[in-house]
Amino acid sequence: MTHLSWESQLPIFKRGLSEILPESELIEKLKLNRPLRIKAGFDPTAPDLHLGHTVILTKLRQLQDLGHEILFLIGDFTAMIGDPTGKNVTRKILSPEAIAENAQTYRTQVFKILDPEKTQVMFNSEWMGKKSAGEMIGLASLSTVARMLERDDFSKRYQSGQSIAIHEFLYPLVQGYDSVAMRADIEFGGTDQKFNLLMGRELQKEFGQTPQICLMTPLLEGLDGVQKMSKSLGNYIGISEAPSEMYGKLMSISDELMWRYYELLSFCSLDALVVLKQSVKEGANPRDIKIDLAMELVTRFHSKEAAEKAKADFISRFSEQGIPEDLPEIELIGAPKGIAQALKEAGLVASSSEAYRMIEQGGVRVDSEKIQDKTQQLLSGTFILQVGKRRFSKITIK
Amino acid sequence: MTHLSWESQLPIFKRGLSEILPESELIEKLKLNRPLRIKAGFDPTAPDLHLGHTVILTKLRQLQDLGHEILFLIGDFTAMIGDPTGKNVTRKILSPEAIAENAQTYRTQVFKILDPEKTQVMFNSEWMGKKSAGEMIGLASLSTVARMLERDDFSKRYQSGQSIAIHEFLYPLVQGYDSVAMRADIEFGGTDQKFNLLMGRELQKEFGQTPQICLMTPLLEGLDGVQKMSKSLGNYIGISEAPSEMYGKLMSISDELMWRYYELLSFCSLDALVVLKQSVKEGANPRDIKIDLAMELVTRFHSKEAAEKAKADFISRFSEQGIPEDLPEIELIGAPKGIAQALKEAGLVASSSEAYRMIEQGGVRVDSEKIQDKTQQLLSGTFILQVGKRRFSKITIK
Repeated sequence: MTHLSWESQLPIFKRGLSEILPESELIEKLKLNRPLRIKAGFDPTAPDLHLGHTVILTKLRQLQDLGHEILFLIGDFTAMIGDPTGKNVTRKILSPEAIAENAQTYRTQVFKILDPEKTQVMFNSEWMGKKSAGEMIGLASLSTVARMLERDDFSKRYQSGQSIAIHEFLYPLVQGYDSVAMRADIEFGGTDQKFNLLMGRELQKEFGQTPQICLMTPLLEGLDGVQKMSKSLGNYIGISEAPSEMYGKLMSISDELMWRYYELLSFCSLDALVVLKQSVKEGANPRDIKIDLAMELVTRFHSKEAAEKAKADFISRFSEQGIPEDLPEIELIGAPKGIAQALKEAGLVASSSEAYRMIEQGGVRVDSEKIQDKTQQLLSGTFILQVGKRRFSKITIK
Repeated sequence: MTHLSWESQLPIFKRGLSEILPESELIEKLKLNRPLRIKAGFDPTAPDLHLGHTVILTKLRQLQDLGHEILFLIGDFTAMIGDPTGKNVTRKILSPEAIAENAQTYRTQVFKILDPEKTQVMFNSEWMGKKSAGEMIGLASLSTVARMLERDDFSKRYQSGQSIAIHEFLYPLVQGYDSVAMRADIEFGGTDQKFNLLMGRELQKEFGQTPQICLMTPLLEGLDGVQKMSKSLGNYIGISEAPSEMYGKLMSISDELMWRYYELLSFCSLDALVVLKQSVKEGANPRDIKIDLAMELVTRFHSKEAAEKAKADFISRFSEQGIPEDLPEIELIGAPKGIAQALKEAGLVASSSEAYRMIEQGGVRVDSEKIQDKTQQLLSGTFILQVGKRRFSKITIK
């Protein structure tokens, strides 16, 4: 059972959310003063999770700690369809073996965040696998083509002549039916899942249930602080990455992005967050606060010891290479940027030809890595540039 | 087995068809010199058959007599969806009881035309009823939204904002899959079924079968000779109508329409048809040929005796009422036409006021029925008008 009043719970529910549909109904539900059934569905199509995927899990953990029931849905049935959300081509259908394997990976990874004791893991094959073709047709009769083509992704594909397979229209229906089968009070999803979440509401109404409330989390920005974290953009932190990699990447983010990560990824309470922000305003070094965040996340995905070791390694690497602890941050506009240009703009060399000479002599490092290629491009993000033994600069390319 | 060469069979296959897709493949199939598996599907949604529904059955009977296998499919599974073809609203889903009842009515009625010994009756619930929701989704992955929206009926509904339920997109897929399950060589359908028939071809290819050939029959014109025969237009002859009703309606059709009905509804051979047409050119009375058609059809749906009796009744009714046997036919333009106007144009009255007076006195009959209502409208079609005891005219309103 929950111990906090609805007034105290509401801000915890709302933390970091981009949309609540509708907030009035959320308040009604909280006033019931019973554990709410909170659904979050994951298609086991991408077993390689990164921090972007953990935003919802982090929220679920916070709500779990308030006493609510987390229904963690592994969409092993829907994975056969493939969520068409945001896609511009039809997804390949995964084999049952690949789905089972991915589902297993998911289970192991999510319990680094969720409390297994307070989580019900469900598979939608449990109810959908028993349904007949006729029942699927009945489900399909509950929505319309126009309703589907209202969706941005579908409408774009249709307008531009990109094909949409019929079964992609069935995805939102099955996904919505899951909420019926699970009797969900609340469903979490990314903002891009809005359509699917609302379909759950509609189908619950069709089946005579009180419609769920849809809570949407924003998409987490990647290391560059601009684009959403994604494997294909290379701006991600995988949750299986080695402790020192993870620690180093977290220490490389900008101060602004650090607050965003605190909001969406940390278990640090809202009150504590207010205190931290105040301390920076009063002169505390943001780097120390970034260390706390890095420690929290490395501990979560590895262990306290691994985090301590990563921190120690990071510090000794910096001091070995003589990197000053308190580098000022310079913002450079225009990613991607050639390495020579970046060195020049950061004031570490006087000219491009000096930059090229230094690179040839092996005297240029980016984030401690020696640069071999004079034409290398730096994408948006934060980097520590080093020329020779003593010239350093911390830049953020936007 | 078939006894005729493919060259002799081809014109029998082609008789009255509006389209063959593709004819070259039909010839290849006929050259195989084996009984072909000919599919024709009927949704048991409208148990009340009229002659328009029998055009395909008549063709099937002709091909059955050549030795081919008729696979008569009762779409008891698809009836749950409802064929969206040509509809501008989503059909209601029928109850299993109503479907079973309609299917039974179908069986009784179609064997008035088909030879039960040479017909395999199939139900698509046999294979579709065993399919899972997952298999239905797999089937749905084989076509695209754009492909469906190419269809005239869907595209019109979509453009005009009329809703299309998602399950209506599943209909053509299930219908097409039937051809796979039935290993059809050929499928028959009305011209309005073109899209569904072609879907059968596509799915057979997907499942590694030689695609079926699609043979399309035209829509039969109703008694008016203009619009397609349909219950809602009132221009139909139901196959369960009483012998004298059926006989009378057939005798009322125009000479031109008579040839059309011969082509599409009679078992009379192509050669015999040529002889009949020649005889009319040489002065034979079309009425006698119409009597033969009426006799053939009443015999088919009732019995030889019933047909003889209907004929005798018809003749005595005519002679009782003093209707001359050889009324000339007059064509009037502009349906619907007020009864008074029709009488005037047919030269039976001198003025509208005379017409009104005659009606009031009970002296006007249309097809032997006394007219009570001065404002009655005549739709397009052929009628015998009578004023008083001796004035007659046979008119065709177009």
